[in-house]
Amino acid sequence: MPDTRRDFLRYVGIAGGAGVMYGVMSALGLTPTPADIPAFVAPRSGELNGRNKTVIVLGGGIAGLTAAYELGKAGYNVTILEARNRPGGRNWTVRRGTMETDLKGSMQVAQFSKGEYMNAGPARIPQHHVTLDYCRELGVPIEPFVNQNADAYLYREDHTALSNTAVRHRAAKADVYGYVSELLAKATDQGSLDGYLTAADKESLIDFLTGFGDIGPRVPGDAAASFRYTGTGRRGYLTPPGAGQEEGTPVPPYPLSDVLASGVGNYFSFEFGWDQAMMMFQPVGGMDRIPYAFEKAIGPGKICYGARVLGLRNTPAGVEVDYTNSDGQTRRSEADFAICALPPHIAAKVPSNLPAETIAALQFAQPTDAGKMGIEYGRRWWELDHRIYGGITNTDTDLRNIWYPSSGFHGERGTMIGYYNVGAKARKFGAMQPAQRLASALELGAKIHGPVYTKDVAASFSVDWSSVMHTEGAWVDWPSQTDPKYKELLEPTGNIYFAGDHLSHTIAWQHGAMVSARATVTSLHSRVMGA
Amino acid sequence: MPDTRRDFLRYVGIAGGAGVMYGVMSALGLTPTPADIPAFVAPRSGELNGRNKTVIVLGGGIAGLTAAYELGKAGYNVTILEARNRPGGRNWTVRRGTMETDLKGSMQVAQFSKGEYMNAGPARIPQHHVTLDYCRELGVPIEPFVNQNADAYLYREDHTALSNTAVRHRAAKADVYGYVSELLAKATDQGSLDGYLTAADKESLIDFLTGFGDIGPRVPGDAAASFRYTGTGRRGYLTPPGAGQEEGTPVPPYPLSDVLASGVGNYFSFEFGWDQAMMMFQPVGGMDRIPYAFEKAIGPGKICYGARVLGLRNTPAGVEVDYTNSDGQTRRSEADFAICALPPHIAAKVPSNLPAETIAALQFAQPTDAGKMGIEYGRRWWELDHRIYGGITNTDTDLRNIWYPSSGFHGERGTMIGYYNVGAKARKFGAMQPAQRLASALELGAKIHGPVYTKDVAASFSVDWSSVMHTEGAWVDWPSQTDPKYKELLEPTGNIYFAGDHLSHTIAWQHGAMVSARATVTSLHSRVMGA
Repeated sequence: MPDTRRDFLRYVGIAGGAGVMYGVMSALGLTPTPADIPAFVAPRSGELNGRNKTVIVLGGGIAGLTAAYELGKAGYNVTILEARNRPGGRNWTVRRGTMETDLKGSMQVAQFSKGEYMNAGPARIPQHHVTLDYCRELGVPIEPFVNQNADAYLYREDHTALSNTAVRHRAAKADVYGYVSELLAKATDQGSLDGYLTAADKESLIDFLTGFGDIGPRVPGDAAASFRYTGTGRRGYLTPPGAGQEEGTPVPPYPLSDVLASGVGNYFSFEFGWDQAMMMFQPVGGMDRIPYAFEKAIGPGKICYGARVLGLRNTPAGVEVDYTNSDGQTRRSEADFAICALPPHIAAKVPSNLPAETIAALQFAQPTDAGKMGIEYGRRWWELDHRIYGGITNTDTDLRNIWYPSSGFHGERGTMIGYYNVGAKARKFGAMQPAQRLASALELGAKIHGPVYTKDVAASFSVDWSSVMHTEGAWVDWPSQTDPKYKELLEPTGNIYFAGDHLSHTIAWQHGAMVSARATVTSLHSRVMGA
Repeated sequence: MPDTRRDFLRYVGIAGGAGVMYGVMSALGLTPTPADIPAFVAPRSGELNGRNKTVIVLGGGIAGLTAAYELGKAGYNVTILEARNRPGGRNWTVRRGTMETDLKGSMQVAQFSKGEYMNAGPARIPQHHVTLDYCRELGVPIEPFVNQNADAYLYREDHTALSNTAVRHRAAKADVYGYVSELLAKATDQGSLDGYLTAADKESLIDFLTGFGDIGPRVPGDAAASFRYTGTGRRGYLTPPGAGQEEGTPVPPYPLSDVLASGVGNYFSFEFGWDQAMMMFQPVGGMDRIPYAFEKAIGPGKICYGARVLGLRNTPAGVEVDYTNSDGQTRRSEADFAICALPPHIAAKVPSNLPAETIAALQFAQPTDAGKMGIEYGRRWWELDHRIYGGITNTDTDLRNIWYPSSGFHGERGTMIGYYNVGAKARKFGAMQPAQRLASALELGAKIHGPVYTKDVAASFSVDWSSVMHTEGAWVDWPSQTDPKYKELLEPTGNIYFAGDHLSHTIAWQHGAMVSARATVTSLHSRVMGA
């Protein structure tokens, strides 16, 4: 905040009291309210004024569903063509009976128990995403998603002193923050930072660090002994504080050099992310409650499932789409507009009369790899034996991240995410058959959790997103989002519009698909209204 | 971990592989499993071998209920005398219709809507507390309690630049961690800490700080420009990343001196606490689901409600307790043993033949003050207007902490904790009448949240624990827990035992009451078995 603004606010605060202060802050856009989701006004009933406007949406993923839903509010006649037999695209919840044959020909039928599921695609929603607004609007109940847990583990394989040891997040954090505090307090106290800190700054900083790191006091005349971090109950106890005279014996800290060499602290910043900091949420019963709620809100008969697009063309009057329906019959549909909400690399392969620069733009997107496995256990050993209630264990093994379930606490069974990996790690698992993937996931998971990890396995299901039909990738990267190729897709080509999380700066989030669809809806509707 | 142990483990790791490694770690007590709750073996059915052993428990709070429940497993004939008309003691959930007249004569009847409630006493359970084990054993469903939320606020009143401004936790954290990282990276890079860090340490540390603080790189030859923290998207956006070309505009950081002077960072360590770090839990529907589950498990007719203890005596044969029952009739009960699970300062006032040193020990405990207010709103403005889904706003005003509800997300209404304060702040609110308390809470809350805080208030209920009958305090402090006076109560006086969270090192937690009760049960049962 520029100083003049702050000085002004301070003046207003003194002169007018808190109420006035608040009003002025609000006027300056400085209220504590988080940055608003971009203003969006849905097309409204009556605005079409009797005009019959038809739109074909290619792809019933989150972008396509959002576009159809919002256009439908004003009475647009919208049809979604969806190649799968379900809505949601990558928003996919795998349950008992889910069948999937991937592009490598590997077939799986999910054997999860009733009520158990895995979210194979998106699985968490931050508080500020428009996804939550749709949950509210569509009546999808939500519950916390555990994205951070002090009792989950960090596990590094390598040659450092802490390698091959499962370290609790709380212990890693206590040690890292303890040593960081000790070092910075020492440097501050010995005057090393006097060029950057006033005397008052130094006092405030040391005061902060004392609590932050749970470090000892200044020892006059002994810099080495000052502000020492020697461990803390925060990191956990050999014997916890208990009844009577049991005051608890904290687990001693790891040595400074070992902590630094281990890299355990490098994961912490994940928890600070704009999109990842707690609190996070998930729909009760599976992420696909969102697409199914969209489907219901859009209304019966609006989504044509099993529809494979064969051709897409701008015509003088609008658009023309050829597709095979679920019975294998070839159909042609005409409409005023089309919204192509397919992944760009899939859209690029659809025969069309789109100009070369549009095709080149679609091909500019680079699909990425991600893999996920759900493992159902008949016993919630992570709660019973490890006292971990939800959250993420992060590792540099090929598993990358293991998720403990965020619901069903104290139940008889539960479904973990055995791995959620990307890039080379995902390709490594993707190259295996499902049974091999499970064996490998169990072996790696047992290194962290002990032999219990291999017991009571009731079912598993794995998804290699690069091999999933109609998707062929997890999400896309753009070599650049300021490149004209990216911008090309933000405007319609004739009567064909584009939408998807790939056309946003929150790629790989449903929020991105939704705000992109909203922008497309606004653009299309403005054109109709201006005509 | 001592080096020799680690070296041994490393050797085993190399020689035996992960499985062997895990087994050895386990044998050494170094498994990743958290410190176990102290071993407890409940008295078992049959162990009494037909002996009829009677126990009177004074006080049906968590300690008394736990003791009665565990003794009941072996067939002890247990009666609980409870002055209130409900179980739980300080574990108290206030709902529509709850009536309470406090010691100052102020009477409240809770007007909360159906389904709304406030937990006036304990309200959160960490993963490692035995409280969760009882929830599992007694079939009390649990759900996450939101103890940490990046989008909740920190609010400081005073004369610093950030005073009278509601600062999001995420923004405070980003700025504090950013500047801490910049300063420590500078000190490290310029050699100020060479006495404590090896070259490898320095490299690892700067690598960590770069991600931790989201700071810039080293600028060769320019120490001041190196490792600069200039803000980050982690702290929030003026315009968030969105559709098309909207890459987001982060809110600029507060200046270093202002951040340090404000003290906003001093709250962070709360989240690292052994007992406070996420994940935390609460019973679905209110904390009193626990005492009611105990009541049911203990069995019908075992708890005598409305019973006021008039006298407690050791006799040659056992114990003798005089009390008035709910009809006001005076009764005398005899038993082999008594367990006094009353707050110590209340127990000290019961006429008894306890020796002077036991009374002195009970009087050694110092009751503390705490206050809590539930405010029901007819609109979940914290979600709708502030996008805060649960969590705690911390302030140095008399409110101290404001809690947003951890359940009912996206519902029509919700009940916040308008304040949870202690000490002088609690006494200040305690001195007011309930209506004044609400007016004051709304005025202070509006400074943080704006005028919305005063709208749509549907009901409120406030508790000043020092004025609550039969409790007269929130919890107790001991001047010392190594003092013989404290230890006095850990052993029975004749046939009278003591139990309660005050006889543990987790005072003010249900866990403390439970482990104390377990220790007492073990002690009593051993005596019976040895007899």
